[in-house]
Amino acid sequence: MSFKQKIYNLLNDEDKNNIRSSFISYFIFGVIIINIVVLFLESYKGIYDENKRGFYYIELSSIIIFSIEYILRTWTADLANPKLPAYRARINYICSFMGLVDLIAILPFYLPYLFKIDLRIVRVLRLFRLLRILKLTRHHRSINLIIVVIKKTKSDILSTLFIVLILLVLSSTIMYYLENEAQPDQFTDIGQAFWWAIATLTTVGYGDIYPVTGLGKILSSSIALLGIGIVALPTGIISSAYIQEVQKEAEPCNCPHCGKEI
Amino acid sequence: MSFKQKIYNLLNDEDKNNIRSSFISYFIFGVIIINIVVLFLESYKGIYDENKRGFYYIELSSIIIFSIEYILRTWTADLANPKLPAYRARINYICSFMGLVDLIAILPFYLPYLFKIDLRIVRVLRLFRLLRILKLTRHHRSINLIIVVIKKTKSDILSTLFIVLILLVLSSTIMYYLENEAQPDQFTDIGQAFWWAIATLTTVGYGDIYPVTGLGKILSSSIALLGIGIVALPTGIISSAYIQEVQKEAEPCNCPHCGKEI
Amino acid sequence: MSFKQKIYNLLNDEDKNNIRSSFISYFIFGVIIINIVVLFLESYKGIYDENKRGFYYIELSSIIIFSIEYILRTWTADLANPKLPAYRARINYICSFMGLVDLIAILPFYLPYLFKIDLRIVRVLRLFRLLRILKLTRHHRSINLIIVVIKKTKSDILSTLFIVLILLVLSSTIMYYLENEAQPDQFTDIGQAFWWAIATLTTVGYGDIYPVTGLGKILSSSIALLGIGIVALPTGIISSAYIQEVQKEAEPCNCPHCGKEI
Amino acid sequence: MSFKQKIYNLLNDEDKNNIRSSFISYFIFGVIIINIVVLFLESYKGIYDENKRGFYYIELSSIIIFSIEYILRTWTADLANPKLPAYRARINYICSFMGLVDLIAILPFYLPYLFKIDLRIVRVLRLFRLLRILKLTRHHRSINLIIVVIKKTKSDILSTLFIVLILLVLSSTIMYYLENEAQPDQFTDIGQAFWWAIATLTTVGYGDIYPVTGLGKILSSSIALLGIGIVALPTGIISSAYIQEVQKEAEPCNCPHCGKEI
Repeated sequence: MSFKQKIYNLLNDEDKNNIRSSFISYFIFGVIIINIVVLFLESYKGIYDENKRGFYYIELSSIIIFSIEYILRTWTADLANPKLPAYRARINYICSFMGLVDLIAILPFYLPYLFKIDLRIVRVLRLFRLLRILKLTRHHRSINLIIVVIKKTKSDILSTLFIVLILLVLSSTIMYYLENEAQPDQFTDIGQAFWWAIATLTTVGYGDIYPVTGLGKILSSSIALLGIGIVALPTGIISSAYIQEVQKEAEPCNCPHCGKEI
Repeated sequence: MSFKQKIYNLLNDEDKNNIRSSFISYFIFGVIIINIVVLFLESYKGIYDENKRGFYYIELSSIIIFSIEYILRTWTADLANPKLPAYRARINYICSFMGLVDLIAILPFYLPYLFKIDLRIVRVLRLFRLLRILKLTRHHRSINLIIVVIKKTKSDILSTLFIVLILLVLSSTIMYYLENEAQPDQFTDIGQAFWWAIATLTTVGYGDIYPVTGLGKILSSSIALLGIGIVALPTGIISSAYIQEVQKEAEPCNCPHCGKEI
Repeated sequence: MSFKQKIYNLLNDEDKNNIRSSFISYFIFGVIIINIVVLFLESYKGIYDENKRGFYYIELSSIIIFSIEYILRTWTADLANPKLPAYRARINYICSFMGLVDLIAILPFYLPYLFKIDLRIVRVLRLFRLLRILKLTRHHRSINLIIVVIKKTKSDILSTLFIVLILLVLSSTIMYYLENEAQPDQFTDIGQAFWWAIATLTTVGYGDIYPVTGLGKILSSSIALLGIGIVALPTGIISSAYIQEVQKEAEPCNCPHCGKEI
Repeated sequence: MSFKQKIYNLLNDEDKNNIRSSFISYFIFGVIIINIVVLFLESYKGIYDENKRGFYYIELSSIIIFSIEYILRTWTADLANPKLPAYRARINYICSFMGLVDLIAILPFYLPYLFKIDLRIVRVLRLFRLLRILKLTRHHRSINLIIVVIKKTKSDILSTLFIVLILLVLSSTIMYYLENEAQPDQFTDIGQAFWWAIATLTTVGYGDIYPVTGLGKILSSSIALLGIGIVALPTGIISSAYIQEVQKEAEPCNCPHCGKEI
């Protein structure tokens, strides 16, 4: 096995029984976690002022590690798809979702050398590297089952979302005309009414905006009751997909009397 | 195929492979979407004042398009049901739900020429034309499945709603007598108590009205806990309908007696 | 058929095809509905002051109708259970749930002649006569199915409630000790903390009471996340019961090839 | 049967038909309930001041009963696992979850003789003795079924929780950067944003913290809609587990090959 192949395997945790391979996966994941913790702590002004220097060094080390990882991943990307020419396989990786996430994680550091931007906001995008954790756990039956169920029900869930959107548009527009006169400061525009409609249909109900007129309350009540049905639809969809998947997995068992498969 | 038949097919998107037919469906749908966007934007006072003229022309064009569509649909309605006499088939269309929605979408524009009314509120009714989108997507398996499930469970869901209504009447009346003395400004009448009961049972909980007495809190807690069961009922109903529908769609099985496929 | 038997049949809607029988059921139910509407309207001070006299006459007529109904039901109660001696059958009816509800509906009217009490609060109990509607709809498949499912899952749902109660006791006591110092006016005692715990676990979240300390927020977050699971449990229970019931109802079908039942 | 064996059976309610055994279980459980009621009542300042002495004696008696129970349980622990040497079996009990709970229930009383601590907070831990109730009800089919379902779905539920956590981290960090400028007093740090994210995703929505900027509201709406899916996942998981368990319990079916019951 060539050196390049070895690096490829290490980075992609292909070799399930190789401890070094898992070690690298967990190490990179550890760096991601540390980055998130730093991002959290930096938001506390007191902690940030006291540890400014420490946070900078953690940031610097992370960027170096992520940059090396990114270069190695691009270099070895041709091994993932040997049929393609090397440069195509590399472009495939760079343009893939995970490839873009990997790039976005390091790019913000180099950008200020080119032009001025607010680092902090762009650094948030690094959070999406968290999704690598789903790869780490790819051997885990439960996560896989959830992903399979989500994929299978995607089209049904999107259709529900589509019906929800129609409902939101209808109810928020009507509510705007019902409440705008009584509460011109709250229901200033249909955008605000849309915000109310979502809070009601999802039953979050912050309480920052709600109808006060009789008709508005009747509409709001209907939407809240419909909200129960809206929760029931995806639940029914996902339940039925789960039951199907679980039944598929159930091993065929044999009759204890005649031994034949049932 | 006669000219009339062609127009009928174009309007009703009968000819699945005809690009012109789909084009007309999507064109009309696009006009509906633009109408909604305009309705949304008009609610922002600043945007409305600046684009008053533009909005008027969009409105005018939409009305012309919708009017032509309405006339053509009425004219060709006899082809939808060739067995009926032409005038009956046309009345059928005009009195159908979609026919009324189509009429309501254009009527408000002509009404002010007859008598004075507030256009804006009636124009909201045009939103119901959004429902035409469900026809556009009629080839879509997921939307169809959801509609089938909703139709199949309609009677069960209505029964749940019926039980919910009894519960709401009981709890709001009792709550009124429990809280009216302690909060005469909040629980002014049973209508207000009903508003509280819905916010609690659906778990929206805006927080604009809630009990403060001991007994009121005990009743409120019971209603909130019952709310969980109330969510569970329609979910169970819809799940079971989904599972049945999905199983129907599943692979055919064989008769255990003669072995033939059923 | 004796006169007594006829009255029994009329009151209990035994004779499904007898229009008079259904008429009496619907008439009594109509009186109940009118009573509820009056109760609602009386709570609006303006309406009450203007219609005081009218409301009194409605009240009086209802009481007369309900009293006659109660006497007839007691008199004919022995026909419901011919094996028992007549006086036992009548006591059975008087002590049954519906019998007590029927009595409570008329008793408050006669009580003030004996001693002084606040009529209004006791009259609320008349609302429970609404439950007679469930008898009216006893031929309705959906209501019956829901009742069967609720009865079948009663023991499982109560067990869930039992686990919920343990959870509420644990979390409210701990929350009291966490928040009492920071918010002595809000978390005054464990009762208040219990009120918070229910609002959080059922995801109602009025927002009248919530933790402000770090530990309190962590506990609150855990309880809110557990709330999702708490909704999932009864939903799963009811779904599974629904699916079982629906499968039972599915008529056995025959193989189209050999004709045998599958 | 030796005296020790008899005590072991009594404490562990092994002898299902022995009334004395059940009596002891229920007696100890009654003492636990009284302890909880006292804990509740003590939190009401007025009640505490008036009954200080009474509460102390209840506390003292409970401690004596729990101490005797703990000593007897430790003494007879070797009978639970006769294969182990007696001292190992006893350590097993002391270090088991229920053993620690039993110890924590009495320890706080003796600690102040050794060093000064706040009794009240530690006494809350005694609440966990409530879990003994689950043992009392171990013959109860429903509780057992729920426990079986929770155990079976534990891995799937934890995976859902894991996905929820990733979602919470992503949304709270992004929300912090979106809202911090507009509401520096509310979204002071990512911890606060996390508190908002949980209240939104679980649809509790206290209303103490919510976005006011346009982008913040769009993110909040997405999270609230995702919340519906997040409720649907565990519900689907638990439903499917329930249906499986119930089917297992259902009537036995026959092998289609040899006709014998399986």
